[in-house]
Amino acid sequence: MTTDTIKALVFDVFGTVVDWRTSIAREAKASLAPKGIDIDWLAFADAWRGKYQPAMERVRSGGRGYVRLDILHRENLDELLDEKGISGLSEEERVHLNKAWHRLDGWPDSPGGLARLKTKFIIGTMSNGNVALMVNMAKHAGLPWDVILGAEPAQSYKPMPKTYLTGVEWLGLEPSEVLMCAAHNSDLLAAADCGLRTAFIARPHEYGPNQDRDFKAEHDFDYVTEDMNDLADQLGC
Amino acid sequence: MTTDTIKALVFDVFGTVVDWRTSIAREAKASLAPKGIDIDWLAFADAWRGKYQPAMERVRSGGRGYVRLDILHRENLDELLDEKGISGLSEEERVHLNKAWHRLDGWPDSPGGLARLKTKFIIGTMSNGNVALMVNMAKHAGLPWDVILGAEPAQSYKPMPKTYLTGVEWLGLEPSEVLMCAAHNSDLLAAADCGLRTAFIARPHEYGPNQDRDFKAEHDFDYVTEDMNDLADQLGC
Repeated sequence: MTTDTIKALVFDVFGTVVDWRTSIAREAKASLAPKGIDIDWLAFADAWRGKYQPAMERVRSGGRGYVRLDILHRENLDELLDEKGISGLSEEERVHLNKAWHRLDGWPDSPGGLARLKTKFIIGTMSNGNVALMVNMAKHAGLPWDVILGAEPAQSYKPMPKTYLTGVEWLGLEPSEVLMCAAHNSDLLAAADCGLRTAFIARPHEYGPNQDRDFKAEHDFDYVTEDMNDLADQLGC
Repeated sequence: MTTDTIKALVFDVFGTVVDWRTSIAREAKASLAPKGIDIDWLAFADAWRGKYQPAMERVRSGGRGYVRLDILHRENLDELLDEKGISGLSEEERVHLNKAWHRLDGWPDSPGGLARLKTKFIIGTMSNGNVALMVNMAKHAGLPWDVILGAEPAQSYKPMPKTYLTGVEWLGLEPSEVLMCAAHNSDLLAAADCGLRTAFIARPHEYGPNQDRDFKAEHDFDYVTEDMNDLADQLGC
């Protein structure tokens, strides 16, 4: 399809741009191993991430007002540490560990691929992560965003339409001028329902051996790509 | 003073980072001269800018709800064209001319100075310009912002405290960890009232020969600088 009318690319971030699983495992080990804790760090990452959707669902369903993801991550961390019987962390240590989500590494192709895409398009986040999380992560991982959009600007979590549409409105664009890029079929479907165009970026290793979905595009998306450089190739960057 | 606790720099943009006056004069001439209009283009820029504060004041005073600056600029443009007896512009031509504010050039030291500052700090906008305006201007002028903050994210125009404080909150920082950088004494005073730290950047030519204030820092700001590179020098970048 022609790229002529695409003005901006917005990206899901967790899983699509950054590898949260091995990064969180590394950060958890760095925080907890010095305290004599020896657990399966990847399982710890999976368990922390497992509490992500239910926590946002309470907000999406109206059970509580919008609170930023840093707060949900912290509540989930405290709960997880309790469940695993891990105590003895100071408040400062918990704050540091919670900010592990600000220190995620990009997939190897992300920084360079985004830099290529940025030469031709506005590139922005369309993540459920809050602004500070996105900005700090960008500094850490070398992600050259033009603009931070998503849940906090919209005060609404994906896949609520308001999240996508607030970003489009702030860009001063029509939904059809914005390409939503994600590794998750459901995210792209929700964006398409709002009129955005869609690009699938395959990340078959996001969940490691536990991955049970999103191995490939399951719908008729505008672009289906192998990684960020393939997206840049297909968009003529 | 020590820079140790400063984490982010936020910038006034019109006048501080970009030279709106000569840029708007150039854009107005490019749009209107081909129609046989021959006026003082710098005076046109001054007159358009002259309607800026009164238009925002209606919003600040509660006389109307928040509307983005693109809309205020357009209302002011239509009014100005009427006043000057300029007609014959199509809707498309008015839209293009109104977006002149998205195509402002940086002061010569701005792109390089900001790139230096970005190596050590988060750098963001704290402008009354809306997000699309800031993002498009950044692409045009090579301004390497990490994050777009200011009026539209806060739904509030400076110098209302909400504008500064929403940006600080979204950065996940304390006001004292954020340095407000501006060429206007009043903007810095308002930021200081919110607890932000302050840096004056001298722009004595912003208004050309009409400049009647802000030649120098008139208060005890944390940093007083000659330009963006001087600020980078003083902050050890």
